[in-house]
Amino acid sequence: MARHEFTPDRYYTTMGPHPPVLRIAPGDTVVTTTVDSLGCDVNGTPVTPKFNPMTGPFFVEGAEPGDTLVVHLDRLTPNRPTGISSSVLAPNVVDPEFVRQLPERPLVVWDIDPVRGEASLQVPIPGLEALRLPLEPMLGCFGVAPAHGQSIATITSAEYGGNMDYRGFCAGATVYFPVFEPGALLFVGDGHAIQGDGEITGTGIEITFEVEFTVDLRKGEQIGWPRGENEEYIFTAGNARPLDQALQHATTEMVRWLERDWKLDVVAASTLLGMCVEYDIGNVFDPAYTVICKLPKRVLANMVSARTKGED
Amino acid sequence: MARHEFTPDRYYTTMGPHPPVLRIAPGDTVVTTTVDSLGCDVNGTPVTPKFNPMTGPFFVEGAEPGDTLVVHLDRLTPNRPTGISSSVLAPNVVDPEFVRQLPERPLVVWDIDPVRGEASLQVPIPGLEALRLPLEPMLGCFGVAPAHGQSIATITSAEYGGNMDYRGFCAGATVYFPVFEPGALLFVGDGHAIQGDGEITGTGIEITFEVEFTVDLRKGEQIGWPRGENEEYIFTAGNARPLDQALQHATTEMVRWLERDWKLDVVAASTLLGMCVEYDIGNVFDPAYTVICKLPKRVLANMVSARTKGED
Amino acid sequence: MARHEFTPDRYYTTMGPHPPVLRIAPGDTVVTTTVDSLGCDVNGTPVTPKFNPMTGPFFVEGAEPGDTLVVHLDRLTPNRPTGISSSVLAPNVVDPEFVRQLPERPLVVWDIDPVRGEASLQVPIPGLEALRLPLEPMLGCFGVAPAHGQSIATITSAEYGGNMDYRGFCAGATVYFPVFEPGALLFVGDGHAIQGDGEITGTGIEITFEVEFTVDLRKGEQIGWPRGENEEYIFTAGNARPLDQALQHATTEMVRWLERDWKLDVVAASTLLGMCVEYDIGNVFDPAYTVICKLPKRVLANMVSARTKGED
Amino acid sequence: MARHEFTPDRYYTTMGPHPPVLRIAPGDTVVTTTVDSLGCDVNGTPVTPKFNPMTGPFFVEGAEPGDTLVVHLDRLTPNRPTGISSSVLAPNVVDPEFVRQLPERPLVVWDIDPVRGEASLQVPIPGLEALRLPLEPMLGCFGVAPAHGQSIATITSAEYGGNMDYRGFCAGATVYFPVFEPGALLFVGDGHAIQGDGEITGTGIEITFEVEFTVDLRKGEQIGWPRGENEEYIFTAGNARPLDQALQHATTEMVRWLERDWKLDVVAASTLLGMCVEYDIGNVFDPAYTVICKLPKRVLANMVSARTKGED
Repeated sequence: MARHEFTPDRYYTTMGPHPPVLRIAPGDTVVTTTVDSLGCDVNGTPVTPKFNPMTGPFFVEGAEPGDTLVVHLDRLTPNRPTGISSSVLAPNVVDPEFVRQLPERPLVVWDIDPVRGEASLQVPIPGLEALRLPLEPMLGCFGVAPAHGQSIATITSAEYGGNMDYRGFCAGATVYFPVFEPGALLFVGDGHAIQGDGEITGTGIEITFEVEFTVDLRKGEQIGWPRGENEEYIFTAGNARPLDQALQHATTEMVRWLERDWKLDVVAASTLLGMCVEYDIGNVFDPAYTVICKLPKRVLANMVSARTKGED
Repeated sequence: MARHEFTPDRYYTTMGPHPPVLRIAPGDTVVTTTVDSLGCDVNGTPVTPKFNPMTGPFFVEGAEPGDTLVVHLDRLTPNRPTGISSSVLAPNVVDPEFVRQLPERPLVVWDIDPVRGEASLQVPIPGLEALRLPLEPMLGCFGVAPAHGQSIATITSAEYGGNMDYRGFCAGATVYFPVFEPGALLFVGDGHAIQGDGEITGTGIEITFEVEFTVDLRKGEQIGWPRGENEEYIFTAGNARPLDQALQHATTEMVRWLERDWKLDVVAASTLLGMCVEYDIGNVFDPAYTVICKLPKRVLANMVSARTKGED
Repeated sequence: MARHEFTPDRYYTTMGPHPPVLRIAPGDTVVTTTVDSLGCDVNGTPVTPKFNPMTGPFFVEGAEPGDTLVVHLDRLTPNRPTGISSSVLAPNVVDPEFVRQLPERPLVVWDIDPVRGEASLQVPIPGLEALRLPLEPMLGCFGVAPAHGQSIATITSAEYGGNMDYRGFCAGATVYFPVFEPGALLFVGDGHAIQGDGEITGTGIEITFEVEFTVDLRKGEQIGWPRGENEEYIFTAGNARPLDQALQHATTEMVRWLERDWKLDVVAASTLLGMCVEYDIGNVFDPAYTVICKLPKRVLANMVSARTKGED
Repeated sequence: MARHEFTPDRYYTTMGPHPPVLRIAPGDTVVTTTVDSLGCDVNGTPVTPKFNPMTGPFFVEGAEPGDTLVVHLDRLTPNRPTGISSSVLAPNVVDPEFVRQLPERPLVVWDIDPVRGEASLQVPIPGLEALRLPLEPMLGCFGVAPAHGQSIATITSAEYGGNMDYRGFCAGATVYFPVFEPGALLFVGDGHAIQGDGEITGTGIEITFEVEFTVDLRKGEQIGWPRGENEEYIFTAGNARPLDQALQHATTEMVRWLERDWKLDVVAASTLLGMCVEYDIGNVFDPAYTVICKLPKRVLANMVSARTKGED
């Protein structure tokens, strides 16, 4: 249950079997920092090539292919007074005919007020002069080394996690990743101070973070796609194009979870999901889109108590 | 501002320029009933062919192509002690390989307790014995006659509304439809006592409703897709396959709304949506899928006050 | 086996249960004309609203829901000295980022030389001065009245046929449509003098046609999607978005055809298709895209002879 | 202009910056062998892990990022008396409801007759007893190391080529790849004796090959996606899901080619493609689908002569 303070001195723009920067044990906590998605550090200085450079990989002792890595996001703190975002919708999120009306994407700068916990535009855009938005820090890109010894660019995502840009990957969430490489090789980065669903301008408010997370390991538990939970929900993530396929992956993974951990058969799982499922859209910008399949814990609570009674 | 009590004696399974069943004026309220999606009435008796038979069409005096019809959903009351749902996921919402593990879809019966406002399975499914779900009544299918004199089956949806199966079409919501035919020709039906996002088993809890709604008209205001609002959000609906395209329609329609009614240009609209947009999935089962693009009213409130100040 | 010369005096831009313009019997031949997709006649005069106005519907005696209508395209003759096409790619067939480089779509005029059987640009486009293209006349839009009493705009397509824009719908092809309404109600129109795969500028060379076709009927033979054959191939058409889904429909329909008419089981059909299938893209422009699944008749010839021998 | 006989002793199931197995110069020819997609050699002995193990990478002297690698496929010779294929359609190429009717996928063995140039089933499937199919050898998977230092599994494809499973990658074709790594790092493998469009059972007739190819280099010519040509066509390949997006990539790449090499502007390129484009489907099975955009050389011949005259 060690607590590691780790200061990165290099970053990767692929997730793969790179040399670990730190070895940690299940139960350990890491406090570290991330550069922003453009490769700039806490001072706004470019220190590494752009497109989601990652801190890590962290080698988790004992993790083997077929296990599940548990990552609890303890704290995500934007640690710079300014963040950057795009200010024009991505061409792929509007009607094809409408693309002609999109100008090129200039970047805008946001002031981050850590005391009030708010962001505001440094140079107001007409109509948005009074805009003050509460910070909702989240990790845009994190996950483990992919299967088959692959090294895959941090602009995309798949079963190993990656650039999912889901708002629910915020402090308090516990995230589960399938392990494909010895040590799992955890990467974290791409902090967003705020982001709407879908990352539809292609960015959130891109900023540097101080990150604190705690890892654990579930030996011999194999999952297919990233899973997670928070106080209210359990959830699964599917990453693919089109959104339809991402949704298929997430839904199938949720059924498998209900089958294994709650002992529901496919009819019970279907009935429960049919009435109670909720979907979130992670991103619709990256090469692979992300759909989140959520189930409220309250309906599982009811259900388990029933099964418990039944077993008496 | 008349209040009409209307008892239907026929139903349509297409939305089109059918003879109106009632003529109403802007400001009028209608209290009527709907059969369930299988064509059964309040007694469970089959009275009309299945697949979302509609009550209507209601002819709204003064409505002309190019106007916007306003429909306020005042009250949606399930009025039968039982509802019906499918109990197996639709093959198109799971991984193609997983379809082999889906049994055929038997229907299950739900008891509806109007006093406690809850639904429970009439014959418990193993694992779900204790399941009690709060009623969240919503209209699965409603809208106006389509463009070009078309008559389109009530299993699908498009610009005119139709079978969108969005949970947010519940009491308290105000919905806007583009008008394509004189009188708009409003249809309502397909009540669901409860439904998860996406209608992923192909049904909600299908039930008869008593419906109360009030109409209004915005002359000369042309919109492209259904829009709506409730206490917290304004929202737009896009209907198409794949989900990606439905999302493009909904997002583009939201930008147009922000441009016209809040005088934001595309950069301001993009920036606001990029940070604050939320997406819901209406259905991923019908021939056209539905994506909802939502913007919290609180961020618009801030913005408008800024503009107001600016104009002083 | 009558031969009908039919001169249309009205046109429909929806396919639905409209009053028949002519009653014909199985075995009969019809010679008629079609206006171009913009509603202009053989003299280039606008005579009816645009978007694929149809000649018909022709009521085929004896046709009932559940039958199959057979349409042999005997002759398709462009009968006007000029045709019209768009000159810019549709925004949905290029990368979203590339749409900004597409100008608005001006129409261009083509001279049609019936003696040489060629088309050339009336006003040359720089680089295309020498372009002479052989005529390949095809029907862009044809089919029968849809299921469920629907009337659907002639800009789209589905199980009943419609705006499929497939180059293979040319003279010599025999096409099969499922019958949904008494009399089948056959519509024909939207002649193209030439068109590339996919109708990627949104038009072919739009022109008026003299059309000659012969109908037949297969009583009690139910099919799911349009089918066809020519000298070399049997083929099926799937209409949907995305192309993936259109391909699924076409492939499934082909398997069903092989199962019923050639008595192949799914393993034999799969093996044969896996090695011999060919796909064409009908259109990627209309609301529903079209994919054609083709199987060379030569491989079926081999196969049938084998079965015949086996049965001796 | 050396001719290298190269016998591989290891294989890669990722395409990435692996140590080259041979250094060759532009103009050189390589004669080598490939194992089948299951990792079996010319004797049917498993020698390496499955899923498209690649021969290579070949380092091409002088190739730098931003160049174009030219690969002429001189000869593809199946060199084993038997090949293997799947015998059931992949679940993703049929209607979701139809998947329940697909059995699990048993492999079948094909006898390859090199004298007659034919394949036939070793154990006949009922109905296919007489099936004899002409060999059409093609490379299922080949390409160069991807961008950004990635190593990507040989089950998929992208800008660098990969598992495109296009029937047109046969002897006589010249293929162009963008260069992302010094030396380009060419990989070849996954020989198919025969394959239908789309690789819809998930395999062709998987077999070992003797491969002969000749490389060249176009310094400073940057392309976005694989291109190719044969006697009749120039073509481009787009790799993505859904097919719609693959088609967008391929079409956009073709426009860029016409703009740069034939000096056509977007209107001329659109008009030409609108009338003359043909699309092929490479695969609809792998994680990324493949669409080929083809233009007949005959229409370019006409066009160039016009431009040539115009320049006099």
